[in-house]
Amino acid sequence: MASTPGVSAVPATLRYQQGALFLLDQRRLPGRCVEVRCSSATEVATAIRDMVVRGAPAIGAAAAYGVAIAAREVARRGGSTAELVAGTAAAAAELRDARPTASNLALAVDRMCAVAGAAVLDGAGRDTIADGLEHAADSLARFEVEASLRMGRLAADLLPGMRSLLVHCNAGALATVGRGTALAAVYELFELGRLTMTYVGETRPRLQGARLTAFELAQAGIPHTLIVDSLAATLMRRGLVDAVLVGADRVAANGDVANKVGTYALAVACHHHRVPLIVVAPTTTVDPTCPDGASIPIEVRDAAEIVMCGGEAAAPASTPVLNEAFDITPAHLVHALVTERGVVSPLGAESIAALLTPA
Amino acid sequence: MASTPGVSAVPATLRYQQGALFLLDQRRLPGRCVEVRCSSATEVATAIRDMVVRGAPAIGAAAAYGVAIAAREVARRGGSTAELVAGTAAAAAELRDARPTASNLALAVDRMCAVAGAAVLDGAGRDTIADGLEHAADSLARFEVEASLRMGRLAADLLPGMRSLLVHCNAGALATVGRGTALAAVYELFELGRLTMTYVGETRPRLQGARLTAFELAQAGIPHTLIVDSLAATLMRRGLVDAVLVGADRVAANGDVANKVGTYALAVACHHHRVPLIVVAPTTTVDPTCPDGASIPIEVRDAAEIVMCGGEAAAPASTPVLNEAFDITPAHLVHALVTERGVVSPLGAESIAALLTPA
Repeated sequence: MASTPGVSAVPATLRYQQGALFLLDQRRLPGRCVEVRCSSATEVATAIRDMVVRGAPAIGAAAAYGVAIAAREVARRGGSTAELVAGTAAAAAELRDARPTASNLALAVDRMCAVAGAAVLDGAGRDTIADGLEHAADSLARFEVEASLRMGRLAADLLPGMRSLLVHCNAGALATVGRGTALAAVYELFELGRLTMTYVGETRPRLQGARLTAFELAQAGIPHTLIVDSLAATLMRRGLVDAVLVGADRVAANGDVANKVGTYALAVACHHHRVPLIVVAPTTTVDPTCPDGASIPIEVRDAAEIVMCGGEAAAPASTPVLNEAFDITPAHLVHALVTERGVVSPLGAESIAALLTPA
Repeated sequence: MASTPGVSAVPATLRYQQGALFLLDQRRLPGRCVEVRCSSATEVATAIRDMVVRGAPAIGAAAAYGVAIAAREVARRGGSTAELVAGTAAAAAELRDARPTASNLALAVDRMCAVAGAAVLDGAGRDTIADGLEHAADSLARFEVEASLRMGRLAADLLPGMRSLLVHCNAGALATVGRGTALAAVYELFELGRLTMTYVGETRPRLQGARLTAFELAQAGIPHTLIVDSLAATLMRRGLVDAVLVGADRVAANGDVANKVGTYALAVACHHHRVPLIVVAPTTTVDPTCPDGASIPIEVRDAAEIVMCGGEAAAPASTPVLNEAFDITPAHLVHALVTERGVVSPLGAESIAALLTPA
C-alpha cells in the first residue's frame, strides 16, 4: 500500500489510478488497512457520506477526483462534449451535497467545474477536458501536500515553549493528502526534537482520536497518551498542556471556526487556563461567503453513533439523542489560525480578509 | 425484582435477604436486569471493585452490608466473639480498599466497626452483635433513602428558573439506595411539572450516563436527550442549560469536589457561561479529614476501558492511556452543595465546617 507524502509510516489516504480513486477505508482502522475502490462519482460521494474518507482537506481532494472520474467516464464511452458537461455538472452536485459542514468540499467541486467550463469555452475536445480535470485534481492534491508541510513549519515556529500538546479528532495525514493540519505541527516538532507529549482526545462519538490519531502517531513513533475528551480540562489545570492544536472544517469570514464536536469545550477550557488554542487549516478551509459561525451548517448525524458503542447498545435503543458532528468556536477564543499563506492572529473579519487578498 | 424506594419504575440497586446481599448488576444495564448474589464480604468487595454496584452512596450501603455478612457468617458457624471481631475487622479492611475515591465507602465501614466495637464493649454475644450490624446496615440504607428525598426537594427549590438541566454520569436511583442525589432533584422537578428537558452526558469511558441515567429516566418517563460529553459547552452557549446538577464521590473540608471525570470540564464551561453548577450529595460524602482536592486519591483505572469500546478495539492495543476515573472541581466553581442537612453556598472551609457541626 502507498504511504502518505511526508509521513512514510502512514498509509496514503487516497490515490488515483487509471480512472479510479482508491480510498483507505478509515472506518476499519486501526484494525485493518484496506482500500475502497471508487470508479464513479456516485461511489466517491457515498464514500464521503459514509466516512470511508473524512477530514476537510481529504474530502476536498476526493471530491475533485470524483468530478474527474465522471468526465473520464463520458470520454471513454465516446459521449459528446454536451454529455460530458452534463455528466460533470451532475457529479459536482452530488459530491457537493455529500456532507454539509466542511468548506473544502464545495470549494474543490467549484474549482473543478470552473476548469471544465474554461476548457469547454476554449473549444477543447472531450479527451482534453477529461485530461484537464485529472490534472486539476492532481494539482489540488499536490497543493494540499505542500500546504501541509508549510502549515506544520509555521505552527511549530509559532510559540517557542510548545513541548506538550493536546490534539482533538484526527487532523493528521489521514485527514488530508499530506501530513495533516494540526498533526503537521506535531510531526514537525517531533522531528525538531522539541516534542515531549501529545495528548490525544478520543473524540466521541466516532473516536477518530483513538482510531486514527493514536494509530498515526504510533506508526510514526511519536510519544502520545490517549484520554477521554472530558479529561482535557484537568490536564490543562495541572499545567500539562502548552497548547491545543486542532484542524477546521470551515472558517467563516469573521474568523469563527467550525470543527469536530468538542472543539468549543476545549476552547473554553483553554481560555480559562490561558492555554493557546491554535487552529491549523489551509486557506481552502476559509469560506469568505459565510459571514459567521451561525451561518455554517452543522451536520446532525444518526443517533446510532452515540447509542451504539462498538457494536453494543450503550443506551436503550429508543433514547432521544442530539448528535451534532461539529461545533462553532467564536474567533475571539482562537489564539491563531495557521494557514499555508501565513499566521493570522488575532482572528477577525479584517485579518481574514487580508489573508485572502492576493499580495 | 424489587424497585427503588421513591422511583417505582427503576429496579432496586441492592437488597439484603437472609444473610446475602443482592446487587443489581449495573454492568449489564440497560440490556439486562440481573442480580449478583454476594454471600461473603469478599464477594461484596469484588462486586464494588468490578463496578457491579457503583455510585458513592450505593457502595457505602453495600459495604455496610458486607461487614454485616462477615459477622453473620462467624455467628452462624458458632465462632467466638474474638473470631467475630477478627472476621469483621478483616472484612472492613478488604471492603475499605475496594475503591479509593468515594468517602462514603470508608465512612460506612468505619461506622460498622464502631457499632461492632461498642457491642463488644457492652459484652454482647455473637448473635446480638451480628443482629446489631444488620440493623446498622439497614439503618444506613434507610438514612440514604430519606437523605435522597430531602436533597431532591432542597435542590429543586434552590433556583426558581431551573427547567432545562444537564446531568453527568449516574447520580440517580442506581447510584444510591433511594432516588439518587442529582437525579433526586430531576425526579422532584418532574413531579412538580417544572422540568422541560434533561440533557444527559454519556460519560466516557464507562458510559454511565448512556447506560444508567438514560435507562432510569426512560423508565420514569422523564424527558431526556443523550449527548456526547463534549457537546455540553455548546448547549450552554445556546442558553439551553439552566443548571448543571452532579453528584459527588468526596467533598473535601475546603469544599473541593471529587466526582466522575468530566465534572471539572463542565464546571469550567458553567463558569464561562454563568450557568450554576450544583453538587448534590449527602453529608456522608463530605470528608472533614481531607483538607482539599489535592489530598483526595484519584482512582486510575485500566487502559482497556478507553482502548476497548463496547467489545471492539477503538485504538491500537498498545496505545498509552491515562484513565483517571474522577477529577477535582475547586470549591469556587461550585454554586452550591445540596445535602440532606441543607444547602451550602458559597462552598468553603467555614461553610463546610458549619454544615458538619451538630446544631
